[in-house]
Amino acid sequence: MSHIQLPEGVPGIGGPMMAYPETGQHLRGLAQALLRGSSSLTTGEREMIAAFVSSGNHCVFCFNSHAAAARYLLGEEQSLVDQVIADYQVAPISNKMRALLAIADKVRRDARLVTAEDVALAREHGADDKAIHDTVLVAAAFCMFNRYVDGLATLTPQDPAAYVEMGAMLATKGYQRGN
Amino acid sequence: MSHIQLPEGVPGIGGPMMAYPETGQHLRGLAQALLRGSSSLTTGEREMIAAFVSSGNHCVFCFNSHAAAARYLLGEEQSLVDQVIADYQVAPISNKMRALLAIADKVRRDARLVTAEDVALAREHGADDKAIHDTVLVAAAFCMFNRYVDGLATLTPQDPAAYVEMGAMLATKGYQRGN
Repeated sequence: MSHIQLPEGVPGIGGPMMAYPETGQHLRGLAQALLRGSSSLTTGEREMIAAFVSSGNHCVFCFNSHAAAARYLLGEEQSLVDQVIADYQVAPISNKMRALLAIADKVRRDARLVTAEDVALAREHGADDKAIHDTVLVAAAFCMFNRYVDGLATLTPQDPAAYVEMGAMLATKGYQRGN
Repeated sequence: MSHIQLPEGVPGIGGPMMAYPETGQHLRGLAQALLRGSSSLTTGEREMIAAFVSSGNHCVFCFNSHAAAARYLLGEEQSLVDQVIADYQVAPISNKMRALLAIADKVRRDARLVTAEDVALAREHGADDKAIHDTVLVAAAFCMFNRYVDGLATLTPQDPAAYVEMGAMLATKGYQRGN
């Protein structure tokens, strides 16, 4: 049961965003700009970072929904999501993504750990300022979303099929489908 | 030096919000709604939670600026801020605030730690759903803001006077003074 009264049957962050639209509208706006706005990272790469950070924070709802969105967006390469979650150091991803995931992981744990060397390595492999910015902000934002979802003990669907549908919706419709 | 190019001389989160207004506008909107919008918590109480969480995350810029805002808003009770940071368990605050700070601290560390008992205790001392919601979201949001500031190694003023001025500005003008 959630820690405060929330709309019945609405999973995860949807409940508190619907019950508290004065903040919910900005959370939706941030997610849309950050995960769907223009970037040197693809939407699939950004959703993968979101899923990776949510997995590190053990947020079951956010991990499953954003992993599903990443799989949908990555299409034929969807198996990469589970390989990244299992071990991003050895997953068959670009060296740019590997360097950015290392930064995201440090941001998640303690952002003061990110060094000039971490950033230089990402640049060496082709990351520009926007990619580094978006990686840091996606990781930081999911440290918020994960805590909002779990700190209120929101509804977490147990049926994997629910997340496949949610992922397709996030991938095709984005984050501003009204409150 | 910051990890990406940012406007020169702009301290803390101001730099990346100015350089990346497409996300910055939503970060400002969220801060304004959450810290200045209607709530059963005073603006001083919400700024105190923001400073408390930022202190726990060792974010020097966010801690100093929000502690200064809290001191400004608390007026005669401004010494409470430093007592809360030193040890909120013994600081001369209301039992409601003590119970909410305990929730904020758990959200900061790992939001899955928040129990029904933590929430029941806050309710016993007068916290309503909105106070609990706002506590969880302030704590979660500062886990994002702190990481955004430190993950990009933004400019951190060393002169305490800079924060006094910043705190007064945040207290009187809020978070949406344009980009």
